[in-house]
Amino acid sequence: MAEPAIDAEIIDRATAALIAEVREGRRKSIARLMSIAESTGSGGKPALAELHRHTGRAHVVGLTGVPGSGKSTMVRALTQRFRETGRTVGIVAVDPSSPFSGGAILGDRIRMLDLSGDPGVFIRSMATRGALGGLARATLDVVDVLDAAGFDMVIIETVGVGQDEVDIVQAAHSVVVVSAPGLGDEIQAIKAGVLEIADIHVVSKCDRPEAGETVADLRAMLRLGTLGRDQASTWKVPVVATSAQKREGIEFLVDAIDQHRAHLTESGERTTRHRRILETRILKAAEDIVRDRLLRQNRVRLNTLLDEAVARDLDPYTAARRLLGEG
Amino acid sequence: MAEPAIDAEIIDRATAALIAEVREGRRKSIARLMSIAESTGSGGKPALAELHRHTGRAHVVGLTGVPGSGKSTMVRALTQRFRETGRTVGIVAVDPSSPFSGGAILGDRIRMLDLSGDPGVFIRSMATRGALGGLARATLDVVDVLDAAGFDMVIIETVGVGQDEVDIVQAAHSVVVVSAPGLGDEIQAIKAGVLEIADIHVVSKCDRPEAGETVADLRAMLRLGTLGRDQASTWKVPVVATSAQKREGIEFLVDAIDQHRAHLTESGERTTRHRRILETRILKAAEDIVRDRLLRQNRVRLNTLLDEAVARDLDPYTAARRLLGEG
Repeated sequence: MAEPAIDAEIIDRATAALIAEVREGRRKSIARLMSIAESTGSGGKPALAELHRHTGRAHVVGLTGVPGSGKSTMVRALTQRFRETGRTVGIVAVDPSSPFSGGAILGDRIRMLDLSGDPGVFIRSMATRGALGGLARATLDVVDVLDAAGFDMVIIETVGVGQDEVDIVQAAHSVVVVSAPGLGDEIQAIKAGVLEIADIHVVSKCDRPEAGETVADLRAMLRLGTLGRDQASTWKVPVVATSAQKREGIEFLVDAIDQHRAHLTESGERTTRHRRILETRILKAAEDIVRDRLLRQNRVRLNTLLDEAVARDLDPYTAARRLLGEG
Repeated sequence: MAEPAIDAEIIDRATAALIAEVREGRRKSIARLMSIAESTGSGGKPALAELHRHTGRAHVVGLTGVPGSGKSTMVRALTQRFRETGRTVGIVAVDPSSPFSGGAILGDRIRMLDLSGDPGVFIRSMATRGALGGLARATLDVVDVLDAAGFDMVIIETVGVGQDEVDIVQAAHSVVVVSAPGLGDEIQAIKAGVLEIADIHVVSKCDRPEAGETVADLRAMLRLGTLGRDQASTWKVPVVATSAQKREGIEFLVDAIDQHRAHLTESGERTTRHRRILETRILKAAEDIVRDRLLRQNRVRLNTLLDEAVARDLDPYTAARRLLGEG
């Protein structure tokens, strides 16, 4: 009985030291705690549990848009503008690359865009890998690390496709959806899925002649009430026109984000939203725990059930209930 | 105690009748059972459990590729070719559109392509909606319906992005990944994530001059061993060049699928793969059950934990463990 107590104490002391370093903004410690958050083992959980106590100061912006919409350029311009207004920025780029080899493309691209020399900016790439649900959990833990480290703004960048990524971006305080004029048919169809979750719409590449139409379309959809995630909210979703090439409009996007932030606080919606985000995180964590347990502790039982299911003597639903010790 | 018994009997009789009709290939009954499979309620589960007994005959092809790769055109050409060789075809188009309003775009597009008049073809669109994991479960149930209804080939079409969709396409017997020459940078990056799961690579739009390079790149990657999902398999992943415009190459794709099917049977890999697919389905079903239970039966407990988490007195991991009755 003595050993676990000592182990727990060692973990606690190491955890406390690491979290103190993160809160001082030490970059190596931030990176280390992020790696702990990303690793699938549950060894990092005490650190993450303790970390949560020190979060809640950062404003989290979820920025999404389909391939080709100019997200990465937008993130860069937004970051530069936030820096000009004296704010520090953490960026989490959720990378759509391989779930197998684990890649890092968006993040690398942002890094190349001349932001990484600035100590007021921290960039982290998250590669899609491992189990379902794991990406959302790990991403939100990494956001917690940046929050606890004192970054004023945290930007989560995702490609707006797939339920997982919609879940991630919805866990932000302000959801920004980037649209570009004149993309292909199928891409527009995919985009339709994320338009509804926007707190702020931004149209990129407004130096192009077709951009006016895209802006008008979004405004019409908003007026007709076919967009807008939260019927109960009094927030009026704006459409911001930008051109990264002409370096235009980014200040309006920053204004819109700041106004949305103020709105959340004044209306009390910040608490509602925070509560909804935490609900998602708790349920995802509970699912993770249950999945781990099913796979690890019930392996023999699962194999027996699988034998029967392969022989078609058992269907997946009955097998699932039996795996959970029912029926 | 009498009532539940009577209820169960009524369900059983109605279920047995519906499944008998599905097995006779009656289209209205097929559509009805699919709607039951799609609906989130658990009322349809007895029907789906019973259905599973009557599956296992169809060969399931998962076809995926990024927006703009020409997937829908490929599905249409493939279906026409299967029909010419006397086989019936079920198509499940997993639609990347709105998780909120529920849309149906891919399916509608395929439908427009002049296949729906043929009684040997059945097309169903699945819209991304509802809970995480629900899409994969519902899609594989719909595949079961088509299998039990006697369709020789079932094609699952998905846009190859997001972990959910990778899970879905991996639940097929033969995974076909479509690449098109000359897509943009970010799109290629996304594509990288699905290249590894291919049993068969197919390059579309080979009337274009850049196509030769795409074919050569894929072959080089395969030779270097950077692609290929299953190291233990003796299957040599082929690269098939096609042009829908010139109506060329589809017969080679059909040959490749038939060869892969024969390989799976001869090598015994069909059983291994079937077992792996069932394992995924059982675990997903178990997760669904647990999630339902957490949300429904523990609502009061969850709200209490949420109060503490919102006040930052509790982190999501500890809250999750408490929700599960631990710690």
